[in-house]
Amino acid sequence: MSYWQLKSGEKNTICDVEGVLVGHYTIDNNWIQTGLTVIRPHPDNIYREKLLASCHRINGYGKPVGMEQIRELGTLETPIVLTNTLAIGEATQGLIQYMIEESEEIGIKNTVNPIVMECNDGKLNDIRQLSIAKEDVKATLNNTKTEFEQGAVGAGRGMVCYDLKGGIGSSSRIVPYGNKNYTLGILTLTNFGTIEDLIVQGKPIGRDLSSKIKGTRDQGSIVTILATDAPLSTRQLNRLCRRVQNGIGRTGAFCSSGSGEFVLGFSTAYRISTNNDLNFNFLHDQNLDLFFKATVEATEEAILNSLLYSETVTGFKHRTIHSLKSLMPEISLD
Amino acid sequence: MSYWQLKSGEKNTICDVEGVLVGHYTIDNNWIQTGLTVIRPHPDNIYREKLLASCHRINGYGKPVGMEQIRELGTLETPIVLTNTLAIGEATQGLIQYMIEESEEIGIKNTVNPIVMECNDGKLNDIRQLSIAKEDVKATLNNTKTEFEQGAVGAGRGMVCYDLKGGIGSSSRIVPYGNKNYTLGILTLTNFGTIEDLIVQGKPIGRDLSSKIKGTRDQGSIVTILATDAPLSTRQLNRLCRRVQNGIGRTGAFCSSGSGEFVLGFSTAYRISTNNDLNFNFLHDQNLDLFFKATVEATEEAILNSLLYSETVTGFKHRTIHSLKSLMPEISLD
Amino acid sequence: MSYWQLKSGEKNTICDVEGVLVGHYTIDNNWIQTGLTVIRPHPDNIYREKLLASCHRINGYGKPVGMEQIRELGTLETPIVLTNTLAIGEATQGLIQYMIEESEEIGIKNTVNPIVMECNDGKLNDIRQLSIAKEDVKATLNNTKTEFEQGAVGAGRGMVCYDLKGGIGSSSRIVPYGNKNYTLGILTLTNFGTIEDLIVQGKPIGRDLSSKIKGTRDQGSIVTILATDAPLSTRQLNRLCRRVQNGIGRTGAFCSSGSGEFVLGFSTAYRISTNNDLNFNFLHDQNLDLFFKATVEATEEAILNSLLYSETVTGFKHRTIHSLKSLMPEISLD
Amino acid sequence: MSYWQLKSGEKNTICDVEGVLVGHYTIDNNWIQTGLTVIRPHPDNIYREKLLASCHRINGYGKPVGMEQIRELGTLETPIVLTNTLAIGEATQGLIQYMIEESEEIGIKNTVNPIVMECNDGKLNDIRQLSIAKEDVKATLNNTKTEFEQGAVGAGRGMVCYDLKGGIGSSSRIVPYGNKNYTLGILTLTNFGTIEDLIVQGKPIGRDLSSKIKGTRDQGSIVTILATDAPLSTRQLNRLCRRVQNGIGRTGAFCSSGSGEFVLGFSTAYRISTNNDLNFNFLHDQNLDLFFKATVEATEEAILNSLLYSETVTGFKHRTIHSLKSLMPEISLD
Repeated sequence: MSYWQLKSGEKNTICDVEGVLVGHYTIDNNWIQTGLTVIRPHPDNIYREKLLASCHRINGYGKPVGMEQIRELGTLETPIVLTNTLAIGEATQGLIQYMIEESEEIGIKNTVNPIVMECNDGKLNDIRQLSIAKEDVKATLNNTKTEFEQGAVGAGRGMVCYDLKGGIGSSSRIVPYGNKNYTLGILTLTNFGTIEDLIVQGKPIGRDLSSKIKGTRDQGSIVTILATDAPLSTRQLNRLCRRVQNGIGRTGAFCSSGSGEFVLGFSTAYRISTNNDLNFNFLHDQNLDLFFKATVEATEEAILNSLLYSETVTGFKHRTIHSLKSLMPEISLD
Repeated sequence: MSYWQLKSGEKNTICDVEGVLVGHYTIDNNWIQTGLTVIRPHPDNIYREKLLASCHRINGYGKPVGMEQIRELGTLETPIVLTNTLAIGEATQGLIQYMIEESEEIGIKNTVNPIVMECNDGKLNDIRQLSIAKEDVKATLNNTKTEFEQGAVGAGRGMVCYDLKGGIGSSSRIVPYGNKNYTLGILTLTNFGTIEDLIVQGKPIGRDLSSKIKGTRDQGSIVTILATDAPLSTRQLNRLCRRVQNGIGRTGAFCSSGSGEFVLGFSTAYRISTNNDLNFNFLHDQNLDLFFKATVEATEEAILNSLLYSETVTGFKHRTIHSLKSLMPEISLD
Repeated sequence: MSYWQLKSGEKNTICDVEGVLVGHYTIDNNWIQTGLTVIRPHPDNIYREKLLASCHRINGYGKPVGMEQIRELGTLETPIVLTNTLAIGEATQGLIQYMIEESEEIGIKNTVNPIVMECNDGKLNDIRQLSIAKEDVKATLNNTKTEFEQGAVGAGRGMVCYDLKGGIGSSSRIVPYGNKNYTLGILTLTNFGTIEDLIVQGKPIGRDLSSKIKGTRDQGSIVTILATDAPLSTRQLNRLCRRVQNGIGRTGAFCSSGSGEFVLGFSTAYRISTNNDLNFNFLHDQNLDLFFKATVEATEEAILNSLLYSETVTGFKHRTIHSLKSLMPEISLD
Repeated sequence: MSYWQLKSGEKNTICDVEGVLVGHYTIDNNWIQTGLTVIRPHPDNIYREKLLASCHRINGYGKPVGMEQIRELGTLETPIVLTNTLAIGEATQGLIQYMIEESEEIGIKNTVNPIVMECNDGKLNDIRQLSIAKEDVKATLNNTKTEFEQGAVGAGRGMVCYDLKGGIGSSSRIVPYGNKNYTLGILTLTNFGTIEDLIVQGKPIGRDLSSKIKGTRDQGSIVTILATDAPLSTRQLNRLCRRVQNGIGRTGAFCSSGSGEFVLGFSTAYRISTNNDLNFNFLHDQNLDLFFKATVEATEEAILNSLLYSETVTGFKHRTIHSLKSLMPEISLD
């Protein structure tokens, strides 16, 4: 019997939610190990066809850009850019430039709320070199697909998770609802945890591994993007976002003080394009439980995937962070 | 090696935090299976010697009384009363009466903010009979101790957790800090979860048990009281309260839509008694990680203790909810 | 030209929102000067036909019951009861009893989230006598109308506002929207402010009045109920609720530390009666500005009405609180 | 008798709070009318000597950077940069670069949480030209003083308030406390309101002015920085920040849907420099009322000062926004 109670989508990534596209830009250059990962919530002009969205702070030692307007208005109007902490200004400006080139009305009528989220990859990346440029954001946004690599790529290139090589991980779940199926997808940027705490599908393997590698203080972060095609309100999306914490907790972490743990969730069910009144057909709150379970499972698996897909990386100051596979070649998920 | 990373206090209950007292009032009378559990944060007049406190909503399908003033002012000024959902009015009024009898200035100068929290014990208790009276609250407040029973007692008498008999569970952890030890204690009122999701110390035993007992829809709730003698600010206590969700998640739950999941945390380190300026010596946020870990572990163990200490109970409409021990007599925690 | 920019409804009360009913229970008995005011959001079984709702804390030195579930689920499922601070337990229990008598499924399936809000009328009312009983709530709920008195009645009987006799005040505004008109109504329970701060329609008349009556420290509270027939989401209702603070501020107050200032808002546009998916046609956020203005104006006028309708009252310890009209007989609103 | 109840500090600006420094960078070049305003909370290395701080969202149609970490940790660790909406990326990156040059440990140990806040000056400024560069931020941070201009300068160069020329306004109040005096200062960046709503010290002069100039839809924003030397906790600073809304409301606005209204408050009383335990001597909440009143008055006056100090400006598409003084040369505050 599988550890998981719910089935994955075909790709078992966030791109199982129709329309979602992902792109990476990776710098693998000696002491520079960093990058960008972008998520396009749908393939069209999202400024003109916004999506319902919500966000949640699990632990706030982080620097996400754009959360406030999502809290107030409940809509997402740009792609999402993930990068390293000291690149948030460049990434924000690159995203703004991309947006104003795409939509000439930005700044004439309203402005635009760029979404940039980050973790600190300073263990493996010489982060003070500020290696990400505005132009990199635009190039990455122009190169997104429904297939994407996981592990030590894109914004995940320099990330460290449970003292192992982390980075980008994704997963999805199918949620049966009446005679329909909805899809929920998770993409995580993992950079948190200490080896002794790691639990893989209930097994506290981190304790064994902690004899092989040196544990460090848990100070990292995790960014989680949640996508679904289910018709959920902003308030309901927020309820899903809050369940991400259970998924993180199942992998062993206690959400440390130095960790920036933020969740951004959106629904592709409705596109909000005008100032007209809006018609919605939302699910009833009493029927959300399988979506909550899907959120927990997909988050847990996405984190584990970030470990399983990563390779060992050597970077800043010749530090090497080992991959889980290099230490436990036989490991696989049930 | 123990599953737990941190040591418990001597009693392994919330009463390991010096000054905390607990009392129960239990009704075990055919279809009436309900009660009260009260927590006195310290043995003195708490209205005149308030404590720093915080609260947190994990999932809000619940009816706690008194959260708003704690959010604003960050102080606790009454004992905490736990009971069933339809008794919150009686419990609140009983607590108000107890308080105004104890402190004649209440209502003359300021009023008082009573704290009452609840779960719905309607599966085992004929909750519509409204069996709790104001007087019961006062009597229970006058009979609190540092030793108390766990399981199917007090407010926990009629509660059901993971389709097993739940109720009151408690645990504590010692947090080494420099050359001192601080104590953190948890008391939970458990009434949530479905059998198939139950995980005990990493083992998904609920799946096996689900062949023995009938799973029901997860709709219950969990109330968690967190006490510590560490000198923490209201903001810091809130950070601890938010980690309770990791502890709940480790026992398998995904925090269902119909669940009222609230946490109230307080510190016994300072007593706030006048309108004078206040002197505090708080821990630095960077040093809170062991408190977070202690919160997660003590919550997880408190939930498991609520199951392990409970006996099988038959109540409303002759329903029987089995205890975990009756189904797995050999079970014990590592 | 009127001070107000928007027109009132026919009654200029919250009952201009179709379906809203109000009832009072007043105790005027020497040192006992207190009561109940109940608002029925619609005339039918609101437990079975819930309304979208939201709440907001302006300043949290208060003891409202039922806010948490509204935050989570965004629905109102009971009438609203206003009373004095030490009566919240009785009022809650009375409301619970009323609800379970009306709907036999409460406690069998789900529970019920009672809404009780309060101010401290201890200046005029011997509040420690606990003069409100559960039965009074039920009787009041059975006697609600679309016409109701304002001023020193119901829950407002003992309230003091800007050192003048306050209590219940109400007002409404018509919001033109395309070729429709929506209605927004406010009912306030006013018990805040110090005389020197009072501003009536821009005129700081409190400064003059402060030579006639003794100012006291601002410690009171204000409860505001907002009703509208406009189709607004929970999030949008919250945006309206937050504008109540502007209306309070325009009457001169700075929202003192000892003040419990809470807002509860609901829309009568949709009734939520089953677990089925829900269809909504919401207004666009860009078109809410007149609703915000209506909220500010109606709140300001409701507060002023609570002063203008009140009579002078003598109560606890023979204290007399003068009405505004008794001090300035000529006063009227532009 | 003055309209104001409390006295101003000597300069009547935020710089009356000892240590606070302000600098402007102004671009006045045909269609480009924009700039930067920076606030240094104290003259030393604020990353190494952080201040207690809090933030508050009044209405969230805005793009502030850095709020989340302040919510979690309650500390401010960079200067504050104000600019136009589409410059937030450049301003953030410029601030990051300034910080990492000043403190070589940033990125090696922890990262840094830059604070950038904005309004949309697109009426007068050709905002799509992206005229602010990273280097401008650094230069401005190196040129701050205790004396600074108000009105159409710095970030305020292109802002429009109540359809009049707005921009930077500041004010301060002295708060007597026992035998001490504390100081509270406000700096606002004003870009909100429609002419018909403008109230100056209780007088609705906007109605008269609306015959002289064309009113436009209220869509702007207001950023408010609050500084005090009083020893207040993060929670208490948040209470002050929430009173800014009363000050805004007194000038007539209802906080429109399209308005980004954010407040950032800090106390200079304690510097947090290490990971050691922290000793604080905070004021009691019961004694905060004069601070609340000071916040309301200083906010109101700062907004009015932004109007009174501004000159008429012609910018983007030859649009001219008139100054209040040009329309009412005789106007002055009581």
